[in-house]
Amino acid sequence: MKKKEYNKELYHLQVQLVKFQKHLIEKDKKVCVIFEGRDTAGKDGIIKRFTEHLSSRDSRTVALGVPSDIEKKSWYFQRYVPQLPHGGEIVFFNRSWYNRAGVEKVMHFCTPKQHKLFLEEVGNFEHLLVSSDMVFFKFYLDISKKEQERRLKSRKVDPLKQWKLSPIDQKASSLWDAYTEARNEMFLKTNFAFAPWVVIHSDDKKEARLNGIKYFLSKVDYPGKDDKLLVFDNDVILQMDSENIKRCYH
Amino acid sequence: MKKKEYNKELYHLQVQLVKFQKHLIEKDKKVCVIFEGRDTAGKDGIIKRFTEHLSSRDSRTVALGVPSDIEKKSWYFQRYVPQLPHGGEIVFFNRSWYNRAGVEKVMHFCTPKQHKLFLEEVGNFEHLLVSSDMVFFKFYLDISKKEQERRLKSRKVDPLKQWKLSPIDQKASSLWDAYTEARNEMFLKTNFAFAPWVVIHSDDKKEARLNGIKYFLSKVDYPGKDDKLLVFDNDVILQMDSENIKRCYH
Amino acid sequence: MKKKEYNKELYHLQVQLVKFQKHLIEKDKKVCVIFEGRDTAGKDGIIKRFTEHLSSRDSRTVALGVPSDIEKKSWYFQRYVPQLPHGGEIVFFNRSWYNRAGVEKVMHFCTPKQHKLFLEEVGNFEHLLVSSDMVFFKFYLDISKKEQERRLKSRKVDPLKQWKLSPIDQKASSLWDAYTEARNEMFLKTNFAFAPWVVIHSDDKKEARLNGIKYFLSKVDYPGKDDKLLVFDNDVILQMDSENIKRCYH
Amino acid sequence: MKKKEYNKELYHLQVQLVKFQKHLIEKDKKVCVIFEGRDTAGKDGIIKRFTEHLSSRDSRTVALGVPSDIEKKSWYFQRYVPQLPHGGEIVFFNRSWYNRAGVEKVMHFCTPKQHKLFLEEVGNFEHLLVSSDMVFFKFYLDISKKEQERRLKSRKVDPLKQWKLSPIDQKASSLWDAYTEARNEMFLKTNFAFAPWVVIHSDDKKEARLNGIKYFLSKVDYPGKDDKLLVFDNDVILQMDSENIKRCYH
Repeated sequence: MKKKEYNKELYHLQVQLVKFQKHLIEKDKKVCVIFEGRDTAGKDGIIKRFTEHLSSRDSRTVALGVPSDIEKKSWYFQRYVPQLPHGGEIVFFNRSWYNRAGVEKVMHFCTPKQHKLFLEEVGNFEHLLVSSDMVFFKFYLDISKKEQERRLKSRKVDPLKQWKLSPIDQKASSLWDAYTEARNEMFLKTNFAFAPWVVIHSDDKKEARLNGIKYFLSKVDYPGKDDKLLVFDNDVILQMDSENIKRCYH
Repeated sequence: MKKKEYNKELYHLQVQLVKFQKHLIEKDKKVCVIFEGRDTAGKDGIIKRFTEHLSSRDSRTVALGVPSDIEKKSWYFQRYVPQLPHGGEIVFFNRSWYNRAGVEKVMHFCTPKQHKLFLEEVGNFEHLLVSSDMVFFKFYLDISKKEQERRLKSRKVDPLKQWKLSPIDQKASSLWDAYTEARNEMFLKTNFAFAPWVVIHSDDKKEARLNGIKYFLSKVDYPGKDDKLLVFDNDVILQMDSENIKRCYH
Repeated sequence: MKKKEYNKELYHLQVQLVKFQKHLIEKDKKVCVIFEGRDTAGKDGIIKRFTEHLSSRDSRTVALGVPSDIEKKSWYFQRYVPQLPHGGEIVFFNRSWYNRAGVEKVMHFCTPKQHKLFLEEVGNFEHLLVSSDMVFFKFYLDISKKEQERRLKSRKVDPLKQWKLSPIDQKASSLWDAYTEARNEMFLKTNFAFAPWVVIHSDDKKEARLNGIKYFLSKVDYPGKDDKLLVFDNDVILQMDSENIKRCYH
Repeated sequence: MKKKEYNKELYHLQVQLVKFQKHLIEKDKKVCVIFEGRDTAGKDGIIKRFTEHLSSRDSRTVALGVPSDIEKKSWYFQRYVPQLPHGGEIVFFNRSWYNRAGVEKVMHFCTPKQHKLFLEEVGNFEHLLVSSDMVFFKFYLDISKKEQERRLKSRKVDPLKQWKLSPIDQKASSLWDAYTEARNEMFLKTNFAFAPWVVIHSDDKKEARLNGIKYFLSKVDYPGKDDKLLVFDNDVILQMDSENIKRCYH
């Protein structure tokens, strides 16, 4: 996809996002969008395109650091709750409580018991959110092993991405299979009807961003919605089910 | 019950409470105790006896005021979550999220739909807490109509209780039946096996306090526990079930 | 002083405190009361008598624990600021930012540079509070070495005070002189005209509590103020100046 | 300035910003950067260029909304304090406590007494921050009346900027002189040696962004600092003094 074409399409989608935000502010809607995915999958990038022209006073991006000692001794979800959107707000989570089903599981930052408990209880948590009329999306950005290796390599030499290099990254590649397994278990156990997983094939960043925004907008209502713009590509967007798990990168 | 006898028994129970607190701090336990009940039922009083000799750095009493505009537009449970105990802490709620099943329902501060939703979802919320190993108690202080009237009257002339007179109090008596009905519905729908209601007959304040503390301590473990002290009176403490609802004041 | 007499006088003072609180709520006043003093000086006890009959929804006691890692790396005053009273609230600090001038200095929990900076800057901080119309009191409970030793000893055998025994306590006595020196420097450098120190001789707990409340009430206005009740004892209450420092216990 | 040239220069400056951030994280520095300026002056835009490639887990942009009822009744600075950077963090304020010296003053959202008090006390507040080793910048983006009118007009037709149109904006132009007067008083009274104002002429957005970043970087230290890149233009950057006030737009 050419850059010019991409920019033009992105522009029109961002105009739609602004319309949607105007609407959600007027209606006091709470909107929560989670982005998960392996290292380098493009979470930062897609969130930036979502938020680029939104009112910064009414949208937030949440990227929590390592839990503090007190947080470690608290109810697992407690530190996430104050970050949830209030009425009229849209909040994007760059990683979320699903850390426990991914990096924490794979890196042994949590016990097997904690991991199991999380998978059992997260549905209760999300049901509470959704039943309170929160608009709630769970996106998983999926990349191939080859593309991840390419990006990790380029990250090492890109002077703008020095801070993205962490010891955890370094292991992302050697732990590829462990992450795959954890992801598949997460999809199987937390793909709730009221809060389904949506996978975005992200080897092509431009397609991932455009289709992610299209999917999102196609699922919400707002005045001035232009449905023609919102036809997403079913080879990029996978609505999770037992069949589609197989279409994720392994 | 004579004052001297009461003081002596209370003293021994408070020594047990201190032992329990020492234990919960060492073990990083999270302990959450909710007190509900009609106006004048004695919530302030029993909480004061619980906390009187506890380490103030490791225990808290939470009595939230009216929700702010932003809180009104947020997920109902959101403002309660930061108040929950972290590891090593014991927190007492003087009224709680059950406001929605009581005063908010009766005074029409919430819509019928919000009330219904609360009763449906509160179990999910409490299951999350309990499954995170939070020690969780729900006490309902029950008083008779006659006793409430006596206390409201005495409140009016007691110079130490001036601030307790609110417009909502004034209606407590005329709305007696509406509160009874709301309470019964709450008991029926939110008496979960993992988070049951315990009713304390509270017309006699001294008995209520002593038995409440005994019941609480009898259900937790700690070194130096003196079971002989913790035999509570089954005419004061009612573990809720469809039979015991009838034994509450109507 | 006999217990009966004490209880009677305390009762009348607490009625006055309730009147004052009613007034401060109506007028949206912010009231902040700091209690400092050596271990066992009676901070918990006097605060309990202040708050015993106040509306718990409009008063708070703040006793912060050890700072977290993030707090240690932040502006020193930052963690105290969210605890300050908002309009209509009265807040009691059981120890405060003056930790840095006392226990942190003596126990070497801060650097000499941090201690010096604190003494230089705390006036700016308090001036901000006072000029925002916050009603602000700084009480120092003063006890003699002998009385402290007596209390530390009795604390060891009192089953209700087990949690009060900390390693820092144990050193309170052997570090008596270091604490005296730190206190005197604090008095000399932070006794601001807009935020003066008031010392309460506290070897006699009952006198300390009654006189502390009297002094406090004598300095604020409210309807129904009974000045006759508020005559405090100038041998118990010392308004700090270079002369009165000598009258503190050494 | 051509777009290509601008992008190239911006790229090199952002690489420097990343180097600086790496350094501040390692050294646990606290960095606070305030942006003030009239409506449409370009605050959002310059902040986006500062933050574009920074680690989102270690930088934050703060744009507080209207104060809540409780905040209105609290110490004015209280709601800003939790937003201040902790160690290892860089925080950008899109508008700040200086609201009181600008929009609140002009729109009569505060009393003249509150405005006067703010100007008297803000120095105490900032001295506390700076003396705690916080790295602190105060930028004022200055635009001409003509340029503001042009931007307000274009904002009305730009579909990406619909949410930026507020009733306060509408008055920005007719209240031009009142804002000028308020700004000049702010400069005169709050241009502290320890926290000086730096004006950025912003009619040309590209020059404003590049020079703002250059000025910022020229004033901080970090490994790999390339001074040649950081030579800023003294016709764009005005370090405030009584002479330079005249060079601001009137």
